[in-house]
Amino acid sequence: MTSVTRIESVDLFMLQAPDFDPARDPVCDTLLVRVRAGQHEGWGECEAAPFVSMAAFVTPESHSTSRPVSASVLGQRLETPDDIAAITRQVFHDSMNILQTPHIYSGVEMALWDLLGKKLQQPVYRLLGYDRAFAKQAYVVVPFAQTPEETHLRMRKAHDAGYTAVKTGWNGFGGGNFRADRNQLAAAREALGPDTRLFLDAARIWRGDVNAAMRYGPLMDEFGVEWVEEPFDGAEFGAYAELSRLRGRQRVAAGENIHSHAQALRLLDIADLGVIQIDCGRIGGIGAATQIARHADRTGAFYVNHTYTSHLALSAALQTFAGLPRHDLCEYPMDRASLSWKICRTHLPLDPDGWLTLPNLPGLGIEMDFAEVKSFIVELEIRLGQTVIYRTPDV
Amino acid sequence: MTSVTRIESVDLFMLQAPDFDPARDPVCDTLLVRVRAGQHEGWGECEAAPFVSMAAFVTPESHSTSRPVSASVLGQRLETPDDIAAITRQVFHDSMNILQTPHIYSGVEMALWDLLGKKLQQPVYRLLGYDRAFAKQAYVVVPFAQTPEETHLRMRKAHDAGYTAVKTGWNGFGGGNFRADRNQLAAAREALGPDTRLFLDAARIWRGDVNAAMRYGPLMDEFGVEWVEEPFDGAEFGAYAELSRLRGRQRVAAGENIHSHAQALRLLDIADLGVIQIDCGRIGGIGAATQIARHADRTGAFYVNHTYTSHLALSAALQTFAGLPRHDLCEYPMDRASLSWKICRTHLPLDPDGWLTLPNLPGLGIEMDFAEVKSFIVELEIRLGQTVIYRTPDV
Repeated sequence: MTSVTRIESVDLFMLQAPDFDPARDPVCDTLLVRVRAGQHEGWGECEAAPFVSMAAFVTPESHSTSRPVSASVLGQRLETPDDIAAITRQVFHDSMNILQTPHIYSGVEMALWDLLGKKLQQPVYRLLGYDRAFAKQAYVVVPFAQTPEETHLRMRKAHDAGYTAVKTGWNGFGGGNFRADRNQLAAAREALGPDTRLFLDAARIWRGDVNAAMRYGPLMDEFGVEWVEEPFDGAEFGAYAELSRLRGRQRVAAGENIHSHAQALRLLDIADLGVIQIDCGRIGGIGAATQIARHADRTGAFYVNHTYTSHLALSAALQTFAGLPRHDLCEYPMDRASLSWKICRTHLPLDPDGWLTLPNLPGLGIEMDFAEVKSFIVELEIRLGQTVIYRTPDV
Repeated sequence: MTSVTRIESVDLFMLQAPDFDPARDPVCDTLLVRVRAGQHEGWGECEAAPFVSMAAFVTPESHSTSRPVSASVLGQRLETPDDIAAITRQVFHDSMNILQTPHIYSGVEMALWDLLGKKLQQPVYRLLGYDRAFAKQAYVVVPFAQTPEETHLRMRKAHDAGYTAVKTGWNGFGGGNFRADRNQLAAAREALGPDTRLFLDAARIWRGDVNAAMRYGPLMDEFGVEWVEEPFDGAEFGAYAELSRLRGRQRVAAGENIHSHAQALRLLDIADLGVIQIDCGRIGGIGAATQIARHADRTGAFYVNHTYTSHLALSAALQTFAGLPRHDLCEYPMDRASLSWKICRTHLPLDPDGWLTLPNLPGLGIEMDFAEVKSFIVELEIRLGQTVIYRTPDV
């Protein structure tokens, strides 16, 4: 008789880049989660303010709807995907009034799937009910530089490195200097050539102003920009729906900042988005992201991951829509100098055409680089009265 | 020449009831905020998991949208209500991706208004643009007891104490034992007499099941229950709208668990609620609550506070709709044995008919009991690497 596997420990590690430069590094810190159960270990990553997210895990109980997330996870059974679903229900029931809950639980849940996949010797996408993993075309993020000339150089570099899809934006783009913005976009398109796919991130610059967004429509069309991401603030459902009506749903994308399945349904059904971008490290984990991917698939919307952290998080994000062939794009973190790249020993490679297929490996299929993880750890200690409620554990 | 007043310090105090008994005490802990600027001091209270909320204030910066809330508050100008509005905008811009932000900022913003009112020698409701404070009928919370007989005793006690409106519920009410539920409600109505107003809190027991809620309609009508609060889970907009259609909007209430103006608009406009209940210690503070009250007032909905913490929080909640005479109810914490009652030296009294009028006192008009506050404080210390990022200050 074998005994039931139960979750024995959940350890949280806050990592910081020691010499962070916002102009160079996509992230200055991150939060890794390690779960142990039986002979197995799983890893996950939150895309969330690390310290506040850790607090949600270790906080004392405050109310029957504000229990620490740890209370719903530690000691629970972990044998099947249904066990993870049961833990998820309990977390969101008992920690409903800790607003930070979805952010910490995203990394915890990711680690649960990684562990379960290793235990069952299956890739996570198979545990989610997908027979196989379809290839996705990777797009990389290349922000506009200060000048069109520099932007041209950056884009050329990405093109020459073999990437066949690029998302750009920022540096004031969309702010109304129409001639400057046109020059930037023209430089990008020229450097990338006609065949590279191009997307724009407006970073909420138009707030709720549909006319301001519409003035950029001809520019998007001229330079073949497929969609605009986050044209408006997240709550501007009316503006989103109007832009979708005027430009077509498939040209309007958003979703990276939401943190629940219910919010995703509102973006798709009320804000009338055609492209939903989900960060598996924020939305509540792999289960929540998969629910949204399947909903988008059924209802004609397009699903894509939002990932700018590690390839551990990238693998988690890809599992959620691996088996849905119509959704054939993915955001791809490419920066080898970053903390995010270094903490993984293995990465998800692209084929010569710039496409990615998840390997058939157990769990998330990514090996952590423990020496690198250790080198980035910030030691944390929290004392409440006489009790130490948290102290950074050993890797 | 006088110099500009700037926010010099924001201190956070986590309080715990040492011998908490969930059957007796409405809260086991709370988070108080003290703001100092110039010669003045203001106090606020978060209705939120204290430790996680404090973490959002003192966290290291993680991302340009995940800055600590403290960074947007400390050192800011505090001379006029517009200064508070400017701080609010900066907080929600710079800390957008710290989910806990509305919960910590609610208490901070409350303290800013208290301080500003004291400085300008005006009650907060006048700074919000209201000429006067209208009386509100207080309702108290009296949960169902284990038996109808005990419920009868409890209700009788509330009635005899002079309360003229009561909210009840819990203890499994609504779970389908229709005869037991009828007996409870009958006992409550009999003890309260025909003239006491009665409301029911369903505590989300029907999840999203409109039929289950509708089966209780005749019972509500028979015993004169004016509205049912939180019949469904918060995201069940469709169920809410359907119940409003079938029973009338004015019979369906919710809102205590939301934390933004945008969420309130969705409850009113999409879930089609007729009664919106806002907790000033969760929603983002007095400014956010006032915006919602005015919106409800304009659009025909009914606004009421949700408050089960201290009379400091109660005063803050009442300022937000003091000048709107149509909204003439308020939730009223009455438990003199609780931590919440003890930490205030002064309280908001009811008149012999059970109504409450905010006094014309500067700020929130409540004096804290510093000795009691001190007796409930839990000392907290947080070390990140070699740095102490938080240590409980002196009261």
